[in-house]
Amino acid sequence: MNQPWQTRAQCGAAELTDTDLGRIHSRWRAANYLSVGQIYLLDNPLMRRPLTRDDVKPRLLGHWGTTPGLNFLYAHLNRVIAERRRPTLYITGPGHGGPGMVANSYLDGTWSDIYPAVTRDEGGMKKLFKQFSFPGGIPSHVAPEVPGSIHEGGELGYALSHAYGAAFDNPDLLVFAVVGDGESETGPLATSWHSNKFLNPVTDGVVLPVLHLNGFKIANPTVLARIPEAELVDLMKGYGHNPHVFTAGFDEEDPTSYHRRFAELLDQVMDEIAEIRRVAATQGAADAVRPAWPMIVLRTPKGWTGPKEIDGRKTEGSWRSHQVPLASARDTDAHLADLAAWLGSYEPDQLFDEDGAPGPQIEATTPPIGLRLGERPEANGGIIRRDLRLPDFRDYAVDVPTPGGSLNEATRVLGNWLRDVAAHNRDNFRVFGPDETASNRLQSLYEVTDKQWVADYESPEVDQYLGRVGQVVEMLSEHQCQGWLEGYLLTGRHGLMSSYEAFIHIVDSMVNQHAKWLKVTNHLEWRRPISSLNYLLSSHVWRQDHNGFSHQDPGFIDHVVNKKADVVRVYLPPDANTLLSTFDHCLRSTQYVNVVVAGKQPNPNWLSMDEAVKHCTRGLGIWDWAGTEVEGTEPDVVLGCAGDIPTIEVLAAADILRRRIPDLKVRVVNVVDLMRLQDVDEHPHGLSHRDFDTFFTTDKPIVFAYHGYPWLIHRLTYRRNGHANLHVRGYKEEGTTTTPFDMVMLNDLDRFHLVIDVIDRVPSLGVRYAGLRQEMVDARLDARTYARAHGDDIPEVRDWVWPDAGNAASEGQAEAATVVTGGDNE
Amino acid sequence: MNQPWQTRAQCGAAELTDTDLGRIHSRWRAANYLSVGQIYLLDNPLMRRPLTRDDVKPRLLGHWGTTPGLNFLYAHLNRVIAERRRPTLYITGPGHGGPGMVANSYLDGTWSDIYPAVTRDEGGMKKLFKQFSFPGGIPSHVAPEVPGSIHEGGELGYALSHAYGAAFDNPDLLVFAVVGDGESETGPLATSWHSNKFLNPVTDGVVLPVLHLNGFKIANPTVLARIPEAELVDLMKGYGHNPHVFTAGFDEEDPTSYHRRFAELLDQVMDEIAEIRRVAATQGAADAVRPAWPMIVLRTPKGWTGPKEIDGRKTEGSWRSHQVPLASARDTDAHLADLAAWLGSYEPDQLFDEDGAPGPQIEATTPPIGLRLGERPEANGGIIRRDLRLPDFRDYAVDVPTPGGSLNEATRVLGNWLRDVAAHNRDNFRVFGPDETASNRLQSLYEVTDKQWVADYESPEVDQYLGRVGQVVEMLSEHQCQGWLEGYLLTGRHGLMSSYEAFIHIVDSMVNQHAKWLKVTNHLEWRRPISSLNYLLSSHVWRQDHNGFSHQDPGFIDHVVNKKADVVRVYLPPDANTLLSTFDHCLRSTQYVNVVVAGKQPNPNWLSMDEAVKHCTRGLGIWDWAGTEVEGTEPDVVLGCAGDIPTIEVLAAADILRRRIPDLKVRVVNVVDLMRLQDVDEHPHGLSHRDFDTFFTTDKPIVFAYHGYPWLIHRLTYRRNGHANLHVRGYKEEGTTTTPFDMVMLNDLDRFHLVIDVIDRVPSLGVRYAGLRQEMVDARLDARTYARAHGDDIPEVRDWVWPDAGNAASEGQAEAATVVTGGDNE
Ligand SMILES: Cc1ncc(C[n+]2csc(CCOP(=O)(O)OP(=O)(O)O)c2C)c(N)n1
Ligand SMILES: Cc1ncc(C[n+]2csc(CCOP(=O)(O)OP(=O)(O)O)c2C)c(N)n1
Ligand SMILES: [Mg+2]
Ligand SMILES: [Mg+2]
Repeated sequence: MNQPWQTRAQCGAAELTDTDLGRIHSRWRAANYLSVGQIYLLDNPLMRRPLTRDDVKPRLLGHWGTTPGLNFLYAHLNRVIAERRRPTLYITGPGHGGPGMVANSYLDGTWSDIYPAVTRDEGGMKKLFKQFSFPGGIPSHVAPEVPGSIHEGGELGYALSHAYGAAFDNPDLLVFAVVGDGESETGPLATSWHSNKFLNPVTDGVVLPVLHLNGFKIANPTVLARIPEAELVDLMKGYGHNPHVFTAGFDEEDPTSYHRRFAELLDQVMDEIAEIRRVAATQGAADAVRPAWPMIVLRTPKGWTGPKEIDGRKTEGSWRSHQVPLASARDTDAHLADLAAWLGSYEPDQLFDEDGAPGPQIEATTPPIGLRLGERPEANGGIIRRDLRLPDFRDYAVDVPTPGGSLNEATRVLGNWLRDVAAHNRDNFRVFGPDETASNRLQSLYEVTDKQWVADYESPEVDQYLGRVGQVVEMLSEHQCQGWLEGYLLTGRHGLMSSYEAFIHIVDSMVNQHAKWLKVTNHLEWRRPISSLNYLLSSHVWRQDHNGFSHQDPGFIDHVVNKKADVVRVYLPPDANTLLSTFDHCLRSTQYVNVVVAGKQPNPNWLSMDEAVKHCTRGLGIWDWAGTEVEGTEPDVVLGCAGDIPTIEVLAAADILRRRIPDLKVRVVNVVDLMRLQDVDEHPHGLSHRDFDTFFTTDKPIVFAYHGYPWLIHRLTYRRNGHANLHVRGYKEEGTTTTPFDMVMLNDLDRFHLVIDVIDRVPSLGVRYAGLRQEMVDARLDARTYARAHGDDIPEVRDWVWPDAGNAASEGQAEAATVVTGGDNE
Repeated sequence: MNQPWQTRAQCGAAELTDTDLGRIHSRWRAANYLSVGQIYLLDNPLMRRPLTRDDVKPRLLGHWGTTPGLNFLYAHLNRVIAERRRPTLYITGPGHGGPGMVANSYLDGTWSDIYPAVTRDEGGMKKLFKQFSFPGGIPSHVAPEVPGSIHEGGELGYALSHAYGAAFDNPDLLVFAVVGDGESETGPLATSWHSNKFLNPVTDGVVLPVLHLNGFKIANPTVLARIPEAELVDLMKGYGHNPHVFTAGFDEEDPTSYHRRFAELLDQVMDEIAEIRRVAATQGAADAVRPAWPMIVLRTPKGWTGPKEIDGRKTEGSWRSHQVPLASARDTDAHLADLAAWLGSYEPDQLFDEDGAPGPQIEATTPPIGLRLGERPEANGGIIRRDLRLPDFRDYAVDVPTPGGSLNEATRVLGNWLRDVAAHNRDNFRVFGPDETASNRLQSLYEVTDKQWVADYESPEVDQYLGRVGQVVEMLSEHQCQGWLEGYLLTGRHGLMSSYEAFIHIVDSMVNQHAKWLKVTNHLEWRRPISSLNYLLSSHVWRQDHNGFSHQDPGFIDHVVNKKADVVRVYLPPDANTLLSTFDHCLRSTQYVNVVVAGKQPNPNWLSMDEAVKHCTRGLGIWDWAGTEVEGTEPDVVLGCAGDIPTIEVLAAADILRRRIPDLKVRVVNVVDLMRLQDVDEHPHGLSHRDFDTFFTTDKPIVFAYHGYPWLIHRLTYRRNGHANLHVRGYKEEGTTTTPFDMVMLNDLDRFHLVIDVIDRVPSLGVRYAGLRQEMVDARLDARTYARAHGDDIPEVRDWVWPDAGNAASEGQAEAATVVTGGDNE
């Protein structure tokens, strides 16, 4: 596209006449009428006969209060879009204003384009009304069902994060973002104003925030409506904005007058934006200085144009407008009459023609085809999404001469590949993180791109890798990273977020909402698949060396697994090559939430790239080199593992077992795709029962070492034949700042305890190997005593290498860890 | 206590001499020395012999960068506390500054009071150093182990929320709250500045926020350090504060000079506070006007006084100071020498005496016994916690002539009792909520107390129930509600938070942290038990009538169940009397996180108060009146239920079964305390296997209708004998805006489907009752068709009453719902 940002004068738009303003007013009234109709009416949509109780829905559901404000803005925005031919997204923070956005899409014609049964006539209007918040109909919010929406707005707080995410790398796009004044009280929203420090005024789009100051939330005033206006202005300036306050609806001002005032304000703001863009273009993207972007404070009564009073209590301009003001419209004559009067006040006969279609003065306000808000491709990202140009991950493989024969920080290896992914996909791939990208060892990215930073600079010494344009975006807010990434993906691009494993819980509720969005869009044919939301969780529970208990929580996996099986994927690659293969898969996929947990500490590599690809494709596999099975006979015990640290402990246990109980037939199974454990009926990646039985047997003890909370493995496998024999070790919420091996010991996940578990569970071993068992108990004690004395793990554990790995692995291994990481183990 | 807030002059403090400032400087240097020592040294604590590599810890863990700033503030605060005799809490937002807080407690003497082995001499200092971030020692953060702490500060963002929570109803308390500039980027912190709109300047304490603007976080500059100072000042004014900016450490200014400047600033700020309190006292609590509370911006170099450069790279005043700047202190001579020089720069010989005890000039800076920060009882809330004066909940019972014989909104009944709890406990009981207290039907509270609101007022019409003093605190931020409540409880008081079930996930990570705090304090004898953190989750997944899919998520239960069993409790009371009994228990308990899920819609009451008390005490029970068991014989099937809606569906299914398959012996078991399902080895509330078998049999089909995600029930019961026969129905992530019965049908939790499940699972029923089965399939279809046509549930379901309940229940039941709720079903 490339649509220059021009002032109104440059666009050559004619002066605004009262007729123009009258049309805007009609458009607004029409949208309000259609909104009220959706909330209340089952029939008689144009009130062409007197309203009866039976015309009213039996269950009145929805939210009126926010709607007239949203409709007001929509009507004015349409004019601006048409005049300036500006591709625009409308983000509705108070997503409970669903009726308004549906009404406007219907007026635009885009609703009927997508849902042809809802025609633009009286019959269609009846359907439009009935379907709202109705069984078999559409939900009450600005849900995926609503054309033009990328933001459901049910859980409040993410309007601006989504808006900025959509704006990144979309230089032509205007994102018009309405923020509820109640919503503004949420944490995520409060920090998201600072997004403007990360937006490039040349290479990114423009976000125009509108604070919808209607004064109230559900049953209370809002904070921002109850501080002096000067304070509010200071706050917005403090956030880096140039605020414009607009007030209307509290007096008898004539509609033409307030519409003119608002139209002029909007023109002024849009001209300000044009000027900012002009100046920035002359500075150039790499040198652009952060401008004070304009924002608008819209102070209007909550429930504007609705009933002034109901049952003697103030309603317009109060929280009583929030939901369904005339709750008894079907039950009492008084409320029914009030409803009829309210609907009538919009004068539907003047707005809709004989057939019930929007009249010409309303049609005249709709932007040209292609620019209508309900049809912008950015709001249906899948249709403009391009596959990434991915360098072959096999070329980034680490050399694994023999299992355990080399040592790498898995995420650093991944970083090399991500570097080239970034370089090949300059305008549609970003990495978001709460100041942990380097800590998570993805530094290679900085060889090709910077961290985008459009705030002040100090000196190159401390501002290393910062740049006004960059594909890495870091702010210390998991909410912002998540919201930005979601906005970026929903508008058709690609990316990932890296975070500490424990603190990703901060966005639990956001990932819920995103997973729900994906689930619903899976059933909407017109919405095309978007790129998956990819998490890289490093700095995980077992290696939070600098921190402690507060940083140890592997429960995010449990959290996402509650979402619909066709939406979530969880991967626990045990080493560098499997991590590469996994992430390649994730970046190609669509419509998933992919959770990848991988270590950043130097750890042994187990699989060559060829083996890794096969292993990841299967999702799990028997590591025969690690076990002591005899082909053609059954194993005595299965050692399962999932996760990098559990894999090491299982292999170390297998090492002890084969040395000390040489006749024991041990099978080692590593699981990289956690969902393989589940039943194929429950999850598309699930193993059939037959396959599961082959891997894990139906009757042999299974000792399973798992990265996270052990009960998740039970939850996934409780239907399996072998489940009664399954014994899981994992994180059982024991931790502190201590050594890596002490951590696994605290949770009984260590090699010594695994050997004990095997002895205890394989019939007959107990009696024969009581001595070895006791040795293991003592070994744990020795390890703990050593750690408490020296502050480090016993050399036997710290320097342990897989015995077949040869000398390559062992030499200098301990030192490597410190040198390679430069002490940075945050 | 009641300690008047006075100006310095009123306190009669002498003028500050250079000697005083020198002492503060010594105190600061001592704390810095002890901090560095903790991070690096294993031995040779006073460097009385040349430092060798062996003196250095093998694993260097911890965070230096934030520490000197925290120590600087601590040193100055001590003087103020001593002069003004002000009870004070120090909250450390950047809790990774653990070494600093530990060092200061050691200097105060409070560390050795609690941990006598760590003596105030060279030997003790060696222990102090070694224990830090060491196996068997103490964690790296300001964890529960640290005297004076109520805030671990590992997960950033909650410093101010905790601070304000501590200040509520503590009129004498100064809460000195340090906020990291990185931390300020988090959502929760960004909104928590607005807490000042909820603080009463007469009846609550004072929060003095200090923004620790050291410019950097882990590997990036911070946003607030990289905006023009004028913008930062605007931001703070916009948040309602009077900001004071202090800068030091960037030039050659003499320590006496900057200490004098800061001391004078702190005096000015404390005098400002005294003046605010004086004015507010004259206005009176009920009429107090929100003052512009002062706050301080402390701009200093990150890692102040640390190495200026390391390996040629700028370190002091950069993110490179964040963690352990001299990572190779044990590995390279250069780093070792740098470390020795750094430690030496504090001149330990001048700070500690011959024995290694803090010298007299340092002792002189410690506040008098009782006021030392490490010993304030507010930081060990359990020791000042008083039991609540609880009215007898039995007096609030609803009348239940026969099971199902009356109808109530359970939470409204609870509200009546909570009203009187509030009235009886004016200064130590609060209810927090994100604008949902009324929506959750707790309105009775407003008969005795207001919502505390210290922002502007508009008119009584819209400001109903707002007051400058009140025990209900509502802000649209789940983070704030949670943080305030935590702060309130940690300082020895009581309370609860009510929220929508779906959106409580917003605080998943916060509840993790609180649960971890509780778990650790359970093992610290000196920390006394604090009141439990109580959640009332109403507006739950099954009755989000106005909203839709985004508002439907019962997964918080799954989330908390991952925490230590001795910390979490989950209750699903099926009706009003059981809810009363449950909540009485919760408000008496300590050291738990209690999650109570209860409906707010008019629903049948099942148990009289006597029965309810017994039922809740058992935690589960057979409802013989609902089943068709024959004493002395085994049931054919067990219908289990947990949650109000599942209970209704199970009873309705039982009703159908006894009518249609009269010879089927059905047992109905209702579970109110979810943890009863777990094994007694896993959870203290768990049933023994024998008891479980008695309730659920070992071999009969169990059809279990559960409120949340079904797999949780499997997770809790997979070890049970009867587990293979257990079939669970629950929420499987299917939802939208629709009727209540359509919601249960979407998830196969409805009565008809439960009957199908029974037919399918009880051997031999299938063949005999194929007709009934088909009828049930058709009934589901009919119900759906009816809802889609009428927008309401079929009368047969909507008006269903337990058949034995008699007429009392059925008359006018449907209408009741609308009238009682006034349409407010948000
Ligand atoms: C995070 C979150 N908490 C609570 C709610 C419940 N809720 C729905 S609407 C609303 C009030 C919204 O007020 P505001 O943002 O001012 O919107 P408006 O006034 O425009 O309706 C609340 C608290 C929610 N949707 N999201
Ligand atoms: C919510 C959260 N996200 C990420 C981290 C990881 N982390 C630890 S310290 C830190 C930087 C803190 O910077 P700041 O608040 O400025 O503290 P200071 O500079 O005083 O160390 C980060 C991002 C965290 N502790 N909490
Ligand atoms: Mg509002
Ligand atoms: Mg900082």
